[in-house]
Amino acid sequence: MIVGVVGGGQLARMMIPAAVELGIELRVLAEGEGMSAALAATAVGDYRDADTVLAFAEGVDVVTFDHEHVPQAVLQRLVDAGHAVHPGPHALRFAQDKREMRARMAEIGAPQPDWAPVDAPGDLERFLADHGGVGVVKTATGGYDGKGVRVVRDAAEAADWLEGAAAGGPRLLVEELVPFTRELAQLVARRPSGETVVWPLVQTVQRDSICAEVLAPAPHAANIQPLVDDVARSIAEQLDVTGVLAVELFETADGRVLVNELAMRPHNSGHWTIDGSITSQFEQHLRAVLDLPLGSTAILAPASVMVNVIGGPASGSMADRYAAALRSHPDVKVHSYAKSARPGRKVGHVTAIGDEIDEVAYRARAAAAHFDA
Amino acid sequence: MIVGVVGGGQLARMMIPAAVELGIELRVLAEGEGMSAALAATAVGDYRDADTVLAFAEGVDVVTFDHEHVPQAVLQRLVDAGHAVHPGPHALRFAQDKREMRARMAEIGAPQPDWAPVDAPGDLERFLADHGGVGVVKTATGGYDGKGVRVVRDAAEAADWLEGAAAGGPRLLVEELVPFTRELAQLVARRPSGETVVWPLVQTVQRDSICAEVLAPAPHAANIQPLVDDVARSIAEQLDVTGVLAVELFETADGRVLVNELAMRPHNSGHWTIDGSITSQFEQHLRAVLDLPLGSTAILAPASVMVNVIGGPASGSMADRYAAALRSHPDVKVHSYAKSARPGRKVGHVTAIGDEIDEVAYRARAAAAHFDA
Repeated sequence: MIVGVVGGGQLARMMIPAAVELGIELRVLAEGEGMSAALAATAVGDYRDADTVLAFAEGVDVVTFDHEHVPQAVLQRLVDAGHAVHPGPHALRFAQDKREMRARMAEIGAPQPDWAPVDAPGDLERFLADHGGVGVVKTATGGYDGKGVRVVRDAAEAADWLEGAAAGGPRLLVEELVPFTRELAQLVARRPSGETVVWPLVQTVQRDSICAEVLAPAPHAANIQPLVDDVARSIAEQLDVTGVLAVELFETADGRVLVNELAMRPHNSGHWTIDGSITSQFEQHLRAVLDLPLGSTAILAPASVMVNVIGGPASGSMADRYAAALRSHPDVKVHSYAKSARPGRKVGHVTAIGDEIDEVAYRARAAAAHFDA
Repeated sequence: MIVGVVGGGQLARMMIPAAVELGIELRVLAEGEGMSAALAATAVGDYRDADTVLAFAEGVDVVTFDHEHVPQAVLQRLVDAGHAVHPGPHALRFAQDKREMRARMAEIGAPQPDWAPVDAPGDLERFLADHGGVGVVKTATGGYDGKGVRVVRDAAEAADWLEGAAAGGPRLLVEELVPFTRELAQLVARRPSGETVVWPLVQTVQRDSICAEVLAPAPHAANIQPLVDDVARSIAEQLDVTGVLAVELFETADGRVLVNELAMRPHNSGHWTIDGSITSQFEQHLRAVLDLPLGSTAILAPASVMVNVIGGPASGSMADRYAAALRSHPDVKVHSYAKSARPGRKVGHVTAIGDEIDEVAYRARAAAAHFDA
């Protein structure tokens, strides 16, 4: 069993332990030397170059991904050459293009914010007029961690992006500014032959548009879990997603749950599963893309909390802070991505598990704080 | 943080996931190509050759081991060259030579079977006469998995080994044949600066002298746990063991607990910790040899059972049996060592965790059975 992963970031890195344990051979096409997943890198090259990706795919049983940026034309070349690609291009396009995603969510009846495509200033003006004079303009492609997202109260505030779109840059859409009370994420895994499993719904906490914390299971969410289960499974099935799918959601004060984004790969909102679930999202992703039976998503403790280490130590490496962090918190799991510190960069995470969510969150935050500043 | 591991077997392999998660660089000196830990192999060579091992050790922060077979002379060269070696040669000798181990256990007052060195037939005859006409003759060095162990009722039955010893082969000792009711193992980890932690005492089940199953914690052992804790910690401290130490024990019908063997490395009796404890023995070993604070040894469920896959499938690889095993047992963790099947060879293991030991054992055995025959 050989799985080829396009992309050498921390998601590919975190597949390595799962692969080693199951006896799966993992091969990574890394963007450069010294990437987070360098240990498993068998090739270095540009994932936008079809010949590079095709050469990498030779001899692997399935191609999967560390990110969603591989161009459709490259994905299609892989499929045409007879390679198993999971998730497939027909699913990945909905994670790559937010306009296509929104249109498809509407078709399948998934709850989502009001939205409209924006191809001209008039499109945006009309939407703002209909939605209290405010909207969230997004680039359909290329955004991540808050990039490509702008709250506007006047069409002129998106003029530069509209010009960019007219000049061949990313197309735009506008969404209702949802008065949400919190953000949630539902992780689901699906294998090509159809089996689908979900983990418990989690609460995600963003800081500066980057995922800072995940509380699992989401507190006070038992009443919406069945609805969210249905939505996530339905998206996975209707879009024919294979592997892990993360459905990011808004919860509103009036009790609605709306689809915000889709990610078709292991996702930051699922890192807690490494330490908090029988089957981690990384093991599950490998099992799913190989079309092996999926693993139990049962939780190992009533509460798990993951806190990202963002930016990292102002001096030295994460390793320099280990002694203090591990001494203070012998029961917290520390994960390093072997990346150098840089403001806003996710360089690791810590997870704590236990009986009571507030106590667990306290421990996870205190341990993570050892790696900051 | 760079850890060099001498030996490329499954113990080195199982250190890889822990190293990846903690952001530790692992370098393995493998005995050959395609070993179980090949992913982390940075060198291939003979661990009995001092120059090979010295070259491998260049640039690592600490040297540790997948096995105890590195000759004392080679270990001493490493120490003399200024390398951190954990466990050190002064500790490892007691895992390498059973005569030295028995003499040292006597010195520190650890409970153990009656024993005597055997250098001539008369030594053995006297011991047999004093012990009901039966004894267990062992080679002091080189034995494992039942090799180098022979139950004798007459000195003549050890004549070949005595001749071997006289010709420069392994020296011999004889031990009392202990009427044990079951075998136990106590895993302990100790770092150079002194911190020592223990996991719960476990019961081990041997089949054909190979570890077949481990029940964790050992059922009905609460009364002896404090004594065994003391014995194991005392051995670790008195012998200055660093890293993981496994103390294998006999329990007798009259309630005694006797030291059988010592292993100074992660041990088969601790594989359950990967899935059943906050800190696995592999992560703990890496933390200990790097002199980092040790992790919690708390258990994740009331019962964990590990069953070895011995021999492996009569046809095909373990991977060929995955679909059936994973489908029947979505909550059991399957570990493959990426070794080809061979009678008597440990090629993987499965671990189940849960509330009730008999139910957990049933699941683990049933899942492991998919990989046999």
